Amino acid sequence: MKLTKSRLAHIVFESDDAASKAFDVVLLILILGSVAVALLDSVASYRLVYGDLFYTLEWVFTVLFTIEYLLRLYLTRRIAGYVFSFYGIVDFLAILPAFLSLVIVDTQFLVVVRALRLLRVLRVLKLGRYMMEASLLQEALWASRRKIQIFIGSVVTIVLVMGTVMYLVEGPEAGYTSIPTSMYWAIVTLTTVGYGDIIPLTPLGKFMSSFIMLLGYGIIAVPTGIVTAEMSAQMYKRKGEELVECQNCHAQNHDRDAYHCKYCGTKL
Amino acid sequence: MKLTKSRLAHIVFESDDAASKAFDVVLLILILGSVAVALLDSVASYRLVYGDLFYTLEWVFTVLFTIEYLLRLYLTRRIAGYVFSFYGIVDFLAILPAFLSLVIVDTQFLVVVRALRLLRVLRVLKLGRYMMEASLLQEALWASRRKIQIFIGSVVTIVLVMGTVMYLVEGPEAGYTSIPTSMYWAIVTLTTVGYGDIIPLTPLGKFMSSFIMLLGYGIIAVPTGIVTAEMSAQMYKRKGEELVECQNCHAQNHDRDAYHCKYCGTKL
Amino acid sequence: MKLTKSRLAHIVFESDDAASKAFDVVLLILILGSVAVALLDSVASYRLVYGDLFYTLEWVFTVLFTIEYLLRLYLTRRIAGYVFSFYGIVDFLAILPAFLSLVIVDTQFLVVVRALRLLRVLRVLKLGRYMMEASLLQEALWASRRKIQIFIGSVVTIVLVMGTVMYLVEGPEAGYTSIPTSMYWAIVTLTTVGYGDIIPLTPLGKFMSSFIMLLGYGIIAVPTGIVTAEMSAQMYKRKGEELVECQNCHAQNHDRDAYHCKYCGTKL
Amino acid sequence: MKLTKSRLAHIVFESDDAASKAFDVVLLILILGSVAVALLDSVASYRLVYGDLFYTLEWVFTVLFTIEYLLRLYLTRRIAGYVFSFYGIVDFLAILPAFLSLVIVDTQFLVVVRALRLLRVLRVLKLGRYMMEASLLQEALWASRRKIQIFIGSVVTIVLVMGTVMYLVEGPEAGYTSIPTSMYWAIVTLTTVGYGDIIPLTPLGKFMSSFIMLLGYGIIAVPTGIVTAEMSAQMYKRKGEELVECQNCHAQNHDRDAYHCKYCGTKL
Repeated sequence: MKLTKSRLAHIVFESDDAASKAFDVVLLILILGSVAVALLDSVASYRLVYGDLFYTLEWVFTVLFTIEYLLRLYLTRRIAGYVFSFYGIVDFLAILPAFLSLVIVDTQFLVVVRALRLLRVLRVLKLGRYMMEASLLQEALWASRRKIQIFIGSVVTIVLVMGTVMYLVEGPEAGYTSIPTSMYWAIVTLTTVGYGDIIPLTPLGKFMSSFIMLLGYGIIAVPTGIVTAEMSAQMYKRKGEELVECQNCHAQNHDRDAYHCKYCGTKL
Repeated sequence: MKLTKSRLAHIVFESDDAASKAFDVVLLILILGSVAVALLDSVASYRLVYGDLFYTLEWVFTVLFTIEYLLRLYLTRRIAGYVFSFYGIVDFLAILPAFLSLVIVDTQFLVVVRALRLLRVLRVLKLGRYMMEASLLQEALWASRRKIQIFIGSVVTIVLVMGTVMYLVEGPEAGYTSIPTSMYWAIVTLTTVGYGDIIPLTPLGKFMSSFIMLLGYGIIAVPTGIVTAEMSAQMYKRKGEELVECQNCHAQNHDRDAYHCKYCGTKL
Repeated sequence: MKLTKSRLAHIVFESDDAASKAFDVVLLILILGSVAVALLDSVASYRLVYGDLFYTLEWVFTVLFTIEYLLRLYLTRRIAGYVFSFYGIVDFLAILPAFLSLVIVDTQFLVVVRALRLLRVLRVLKLGRYMMEASLLQEALWASRRKIQIFIGSVVTIVLVMGTVMYLVEGPEAGYTSIPTSMYWAIVTLTTVGYGDIIPLTPLGKFMSSFIMLLGYGIIAVPTGIVTAEMSAQMYKRKGEELVECQNCHAQNHDRDAYHCKYCGTKL
Repeated sequence: MKLTKSRLAHIVFESDDAASKAFDVVLLILILGSVAVALLDSVASYRLVYGDLFYTLEWVFTVLFTIEYLLRLYLTRRIAGYVFSFYGIVDFLAILPAFLSLVIVDTQFLVVVRALRLLRVLRVLKLGRYMMEASLLQEALWASRRKIQIFIGSVVTIVLVMGTVMYLVEGPEAGYTSIPTSMYWAIVTLTTVGYGDIIPLTPLGKFMSSFIMLLGYGIIAVPTGIVTAEMSAQMYKRKGEELVECQNCHAQNHDRDAYHCKYCGTKL
């Protein structure tokens, strides 16, 4: 089997035969490998011992990702469409860090770009069948956007007011050095994270903290209630839409239990 | 276009043309700016450097808010109605801090009043379209007020009893210096905040803490269940409000856009 | 109006006229007051200053509660029935601490009995109208008792296994001094309380902790799902039962949307 | 009553008469006792005093479990089927630790195997009636596997990206010594556990932490919503499985005990 351009495009873009599946698996290993190297490279003790190996591997990954990127550029029909698509940008970012490290001195921040390579996994996973589920989640969130906005607005107000009050009640001695710091404490408390780096010391402060804790404990019911109610409603709705077409008026959105078209009365 | 009183009232109270929209945007910026200044002013290092700027800005905001307040007093039809309305009081509180700081020595507590300016954002946002959603939330909470009261009563009883027991079990050495302090710990634990400022040291104390943690972990399901069930019920109820009954078979669950009964085909 | 025995019984047991309502209010104040004194008495600084006052007040409450208890004994029809009822025992416990403190030296533990006086509030609140809601909660819990047992069983198994594993992985240096202590840590982590008194130090320990945290984060969905689903189902069920009686067969449990009796077909 | 092989098999495998029930109770006590001894043996102070007793007891349990294991081997019809079944392996593991401790020097890890004896409780509890409930839970989880995968994928991405960013923002001084450590912190924060062993120190770090906390607080609604919606749907589905259709008006939502259509009165 000759490696024509169309054959190569099949291997790169599809995943329905041995060669294209192998390409996907190799790509997946490379992506996960490159992210793993970036993580391990940040551990001081590993860097000390394996620093050179990590550096070499990073260049190996970069060269391979560059070849892949050029290959996609060569194989794609609309180059501009690919370059500026979501995956095109992610692919480009994947080869950027190593090259940038040649010209920039402080390359610390590049590690974030290297971590973002994980997003390339999405392409390999061919998430088509997950899209319907994801869109269900998205619809549920979108349908309840106003309730969510009210919720976020309430949380921001509670955090600002409680943060300001606790700043006055406790003061800098207890760690509430400023209102922003005090608001940070309010978020830590309201979300029930509770680091314990800033804690109320006075009886009044403890009383008000108790209040904000119980508030946070109860308020968590609201987003849960919103999302659950919307998801239940949409599951119910989706099940109801069977898409049986009426022979007379061609309407499609009939309920599953319908015997007659709801628009013209024709028997389905 | 001459700036008549009615034109001015339109700019201040409405938001449907360029001038009135600009007024809203400027007001929004002023409100957020004044809150931001109050927050930054509480950070010691910023205050040291920019203290004079913050002081000047606070007076600028106060003067502008005073002009706005007087304008509203002048433009409104029923002065008393405005002055004692929710927004009237919030508007008045917004201009109070700076003036009060001239006559009072300890002005620390005024920062809370300055933070409350955030509430003025509500007016600018013209929250009409959110009201239906908010009322849905409110109805859900109101409909389940008795369940919520039972829940709060149970939480208070658990906190009092567990707080007293832990005060006896652990005692002052572990930080449980008094029953109120011990109840504060019980709230911190039951709500899963877990600061770690007071922790059980004895095996019995740890065992009882584990019990209260699992209780708190399970009990959180109750408010969530309450709110979710009520919200689902109300969404269902609202949707059902426009039930059309079929004259032939009495089926009621027709879609809003249906012209014929989906069961027997009779015209609705 | 003469204070006959039946009049007295009315005042004590009912709450539908001025005198009986006043009795309830006074009793409520006494109960809350006696609990408040018990709490404040445990604060060392208050005890130092007001110790004598607290002691006197405790005796005043005890005398008044004793009079009330004797009154109830005198007024009730079935003395044994009252004495061994829930409220009878709570009432008796309320007068016990002060008398016991005369004969026992170490009276520390009596403070729990004093805190339990809060339960007497239940009687004053006359919780009749809350009973239906409480029974709805109870039914929901009872209907899902098996799911809850499975859930608790799973949690206990996770805690035991993860606690044992972490005891091996981290060892005594990190605070995991024994398996019970390690299980205490597992509960603190699984319930997302997170005191921070015992924390994993090794990379492997941190990895396993991350796993148990995500497990706890996800597993909290299960009790919530159980309670919510049951409560929704029961609300739906209750609404559906309208109790319209069929003229022909006297069946009562017809749906709200029913036009004909589902047993005999008679028009309702 | 002679102790034949079939009689013995009845006692061991069933639990419907006095002898077989007694066997189950004794087995339950032995299992819980052996786990309790393993736990207490790990407490240094207990081991010091009761170490010899614990060692003896462990051998007593092992001998008894070995007898039971051999008995099951002798009584079962298909030996291979039993040996490689779930319970067969658990039974074998239960007798392993003591024997292994004779040949291995570092027997620390055997304590995990000893803790796993708890799984044997499952057999004694004869969990048949719980299986339907458990399968309902399982079905709910399985039906929402894609939503759960999307959720876990999102959590992993958030943890990786936020961990990398916080590693850059805070750096090793604040405890964010490497990206893996920083990801551990992100999990501790996102799940609202909040140990407080690693905390942000810079204003930017605190701001980003606040963001991840609120994200975690809100995101917990998603698994809850998923599980609840699925469980509600399945409860509804199970109830609806016996839909009877009316011949006249095609209504389907009749109760299980209905004889006539509730809409038109036609006999079902």
